[in-house]
Amino acid sequence: MPKIDKSRIMILATNGFEQSELEVPLKKLAEAGATVDVVSLKDGEITGWEKKDWGSAVKVDRTLADVRVEDYDALVLPGGQMNPDLLRVEKDAVTFVRSFNDTGKPLAAICHAPWLLIEADLVRGLKATSYGSIKTDMINAGAKWEDSQTVRDGNIITARKPDDLDAFVAEIIKAVEGEAAQKHAA
Amino acid sequence: MPKIDKSRIMILATNGFEQSELEVPLKKLAEAGATVDVVSLKDGEITGWEKKDWGSAVKVDRTLADVRVEDYDALVLPGGQMNPDLLRVEKDAVTFVRSFNDTGKPLAAICHAPWLLIEADLVRGLKATSYGSIKTDMINAGAKWEDSQTVRDGNIITARKPDDLDAFVAEIIKAVEGEAAQKHAA
Repeated sequence: MPKIDKSRIMILATNGFEQSELEVPLKKLAEAGATVDVVSLKDGEITGWEKKDWGSAVKVDRTLADVRVEDYDALVLPGGQMNPDLLRVEKDAVTFVRSFNDTGKPLAAICHAPWLLIEADLVRGLKATSYGSIKTDMINAGAKWEDSQTVRDGNIITARKPDDLDAFVAEIIKAVEGEAAQKHAA
Repeated sequence: MPKIDKSRIMILATNGFEQSELEVPLKKLAEAGATVDVVSLKDGEITGWEKKDWGSAVKVDRTLADVRVEDYDALVLPGGQMNPDLLRVEKDAVTFVRSFNDTGKPLAAICHAPWLLIEADLVRGLKATSYGSIKTDMINAGAKWEDSQTVRDGNIITARKPDDLDAFVAEIIKAVEGEAAQKHAA
């Protein structure tokens, strides 16, 4: 596994991402020396959601059609009520998440983003957490759901909400640098 | 069962409901002669979501704390990405939906609102539809999911999206007036 300052990390999101859940990992992983790309369905910008309204826009570095699983050492999925709901109906996004998991490299999802893990059928038997509102969906999908700041099971890291971001990013860095990841067998 | 013009119908929603999915049933059921109450968690107004932004506000007639299952002949749950996600974490809302189902009276959910049926554990073995993005959640919760405009199984009516609203409302009216409803055994 690479040291974090030699690593390339992909953040996959679309409009309606929870502002902090994209921006904090982007900032902190870049501060740690990683090259971080924001990847989305289309070129241009995507706009976040901040508390009760649209937040600010973030530049899209690459489109999903242009990236390959091999290009990145970790995949980070921000939450928000809209963003994962929009991505989970995009076959290419779900296939990418599933293919990324197949590599055994760190795959991290926070808040409502575990919906994408559900859609990729990666949750069966997985120790995981999520935003509280989707706990039932996670359990129905086969998760061993825990109310913890961050849960890591093999290469899959999950967290509950913006308050967990520091622990979430720390766990991503540890996973990228760390012990050989064990792929979660879905 | 009452004729529609003697019936009382409750719409349960909070902010971020899909504008048309509250307003069309409200208008059409009222035009058919029903007394229709918009019920929410708090007094005042709730604001809808229209395509890509906040829509318009609708007056809240009664709060959830003030209504009883006995007060209504049918319960209608509008969708939207936010509204059901916010309601499903409200224990009183989920308990109300479950109690309403226990009466065997028509319970209708469109788009993302079947999340509330999932949360109330009413989906196991249920023939149902929903917005496409939550199809996997429905199936994981035990639904026999169908891609149909409207599906009725016992007293539970589901529909997919705003385009289905005419059929959805017609089915609600039929259920309120109609054959003795068979309660879905969850």
